[in-house]
Amino acid sequence: MDFKIIQSTPIFNALSSLGKEISLPDGIFYWAGRAKKEAEILGTIGAAFGFEKDFIDGGSENWVPCYLDGIKEYSSLNISNIVPYASIGGVNELRDLWKTWIIEKSGYSKSSDKDKIDFLNKNISKPIITNGVTNGIFLAASLFLNPNESIICPNKRWGNYDLIIEKRIGAKIESFQFFENNRINLEGLKDSIEKIGNFQDKVVIILNFPNNPTGYVPKIDEADALISLFKKTQEKLRKPFIIIVDDAYEPYVYENNMLTHSIFYKLQQLKQDIIPVKLDGITKELLMYGGRIGFLTIGLKPSWVPNDEELNKLKNELHNKLKGMNRSTISNCNHFYQQLTIELFKDEGIEGIIEKRDKVKNLLERRYRIINEELKKIKDPDITIDPNSGGFFLFLNLNKDKIKATEFADHLLRNYKIGVIPIQKPQEDINGIRIAYCSIDIKDIPEFTKRIEQALKDF
Amino acid sequence: MDFKIIQSTPIFNALSSLGKEISLPDGIFYWAGRAKKEAEILGTIGAAFGFEKDFIDGGSENWVPCYLDGIKEYSSLNISNIVPYASIGGVNELRDLWKTWIIEKSGYSKSSDKDKIDFLNKNISKPIITNGVTNGIFLAASLFLNPNESIICPNKRWGNYDLIIEKRIGAKIESFQFFENNRINLEGLKDSIEKIGNFQDKVVIILNFPNNPTGYVPKIDEADALISLFKKTQEKLRKPFIIIVDDAYEPYVYENNMLTHSIFYKLQQLKQDIIPVKLDGITKELLMYGGRIGFLTIGLKPSWVPNDEELNKLKNELHNKLKGMNRSTISNCNHFYQQLTIELFKDEGIEGIIEKRDKVKNLLERRYRIINEELKKIKDPDITIDPNSGGFFLFLNLNKDKIKATEFADHLLRNYKIGVIPIQKPQEDINGIRIAYCSIDIKDIPEFTKRIEQALKDF
Repeated sequence: MDFKIIQSTPIFNALSSLGKEISLPDGIFYWAGRAKKEAEILGTIGAAFGFEKDFIDGGSENWVPCYLDGIKEYSSLNISNIVPYASIGGVNELRDLWKTWIIEKSGYSKSSDKDKIDFLNKNISKPIITNGVTNGIFLAASLFLNPNESIICPNKRWGNYDLIIEKRIGAKIESFQFFENNRINLEGLKDSIEKIGNFQDKVVIILNFPNNPTGYVPKIDEADALISLFKKTQEKLRKPFIIIVDDAYEPYVYENNMLTHSIFYKLQQLKQDIIPVKLDGITKELLMYGGRIGFLTIGLKPSWVPNDEELNKLKNELHNKLKGMNRSTISNCNHFYQQLTIELFKDEGIEGIIEKRDKVKNLLERRYRIINEELKKIKDPDITIDPNSGGFFLFLNLNKDKIKATEFADHLLRNYKIGVIPIQKPQEDINGIRIAYCSIDIKDIPEFTKRIEQALKDF
Repeated sequence: MDFKIIQSTPIFNALSSLGKEISLPDGIFYWAGRAKKEAEILGTIGAAFGFEKDFIDGGSENWVPCYLDGIKEYSSLNISNIVPYASIGGVNELRDLWKTWIIEKSGYSKSSDKDKIDFLNKNISKPIITNGVTNGIFLAASLFLNPNESIICPNKRWGNYDLIIEKRIGAKIESFQFFENNRINLEGLKDSIEKIGNFQDKVVIILNFPNNPTGYVPKIDEADALISLFKKTQEKLRKPFIIIVDDAYEPYVYENNMLTHSIFYKLQQLKQDIIPVKLDGITKELLMYGGRIGFLTIGLKPSWVPNDEELNKLKNELHNKLKGMNRSTISNCNHFYQQLTIELFKDEGIEGIIEKRDKVKNLLERRYRIINEELKKIKDPDITIDPNSGGFFLFLNLNKDKIKATEFADHLLRNYKIGVIPIQKPQEDINGIRIAYCSIDIKDIPEFTKRIEQALKDF
């Protein structure tokens, strides 16, 4: 593949050296693909096939992938959805289905927002399947960051970002203080963008709403101000912005006056070279943590190409690079959970899935309300709760001059039998505990917060 | 983790900068682990849990991971083996089980080789689970190779090695001519070892028997000569040797006078700092390509540590690094196929699995014999068949001055409806076709080779 189109777009300038270099070699796939269509006898397939009767007692006359007798007992799915490889970019049916799902999740109305839906449908890439959202983060960061380049990120973030970006890739996190007066700290973000944008030939940012560990979701006006900040700084810097949108907790927003849909959609509509990369997956959205099925989807800009044909070529070039990334790290993702997701969508429909999930979401929402109410009752000048209205967690800050988070967590565990995750990063100005109310029963919450209150008094 | 033991062993000198740096941060796992043991109310778990009755109509009183109603229909496995995360290094039961399987695969007799079995059991690391064998190759190569460092590999190798090692990691492949007079070219390998060993502070080699694309397996005396070469060159160079053993096709050896067990076992017994890294998986061994479950196991040397306690500490340090690699790229591997493998071993036993797989192996063996017989009948000075006695493929070399492999494959496909994969790499002195007899029915083989013979006459 010669990557002619992508080289003419701003996305190319934002790619890491690896991103610029990587491709899926066409040799074996070209010949295997042709053979499938043209050959009478195929000697191309690198998996054992045979007539079922030749290796299974009582097997059929069908020519199938060879499998071990007994496998069928563990799943109602067809053997052809469990045994063979899924393709490198993922099962095509699931990729199409997830694109429809992404459009559904925009919240656009099928009648009044038809233009927006068409625009989205046309200009986003076909989701590539990754080994869960973590693998999507690793893939996106590898695609856009060279060692020593910087990515902008709030100080309160999932700890694994540090491991992936700093330790694994050798890039740097440009951290900004997340909150200022209980709102997102746009000044801090702006300073970071300008600092990085002045010496790096692209600006890469990762956002995560609802956020881990705080549960923060922007209010509508905060989201608008954020978008406006991106527009203004991009217009000034005139360098491509890559905004990696970690949508792991996407559906779990519990307040209506908030950004109830992923910020990906607002970013995608911008005319500027502000390129959103959406990472989502079945992990939390369909409550299938062990499935390791995530998706990476890139928002393209119509201004980059003169017509639809070139747009499709651009998509193919991008997909080729993404497949090259998969092929060279994981080959492909597991087949069972891809097929299970397809069947689930077929059997339940989008409405059915949302309805079933709402039972869990409502459960979490009730816990969210009660834990926030209970925590508000604690009148202690040494604690503050970060703004939160979604996700699985919330974050309680402790006065760093008086209470060390790890000591507090230890005290809480030893003396009050309460488990929380302390985060104590003085260089990032963080000292507090993450509370995963997603796994605390609603009836236990008052007792949980009471014990925290008592423990606080001991300090 | 302070990695005190590993730093005192030769394995540390062989690690890449990334390998030296990487670790699994203990924070979240330390606190979650303690909470599990010590807490009455857990606010640490990052997955939604609830009483089943609260989110499933007719659900039980049990406290379980929240899941979507309907999931149960697709598998007979318990929801707790499908929905939650598997741990970062893999489900412990499967890791133990696979270690037993690795010992079984050594072929050591339980009565007469008891010492060897004990030695193996004691000195190999507990297998870490990877996203298939590809991911194991990526992991091992990332752990031991910096960009621009070299790994030694035969010229005839799986094409994906090039993508992983050269494009993805930015390291180099030091290629040697695989065969000389139908035997492994030990002189070429020796030259490569000396060349690399003289300027690099370690020697890294990747071996793959049965080999893709040739099906080559060393004869017993070739294997002995190979081992002897490693011993001699390591003693001379006095630098650690890392031998990555790609055992994807391990069980498929069809001749008895060959190395019928992985070369890992012979390497593991060596006293020298020749460190074997075994990569295997359910992909081909249990015929579960779509499962993406591989294993990485490292052979340690007793001379590195004074006692068992230190050996166990060394293993823990290594496991921590390997888990850090997983955490920062894929988080963990899918749960379903790990549990399916456990159940399969429980339900069928090792003997049951081998017996079931032998039906497939016998099928492949019959094809192997016939295709080799039929190809031998073609009396054409322009072709040679590489030595082969295992795996899924064989390789037919074409006279490069007369027949270009891609042209031949195209001609074969267009005019004889036969699909094969041409490999044409002049700089590596390769010009031939890979024939995947694993997917050709035995009855079609004579026709398949007849058409190849006819096509050859056209050139």
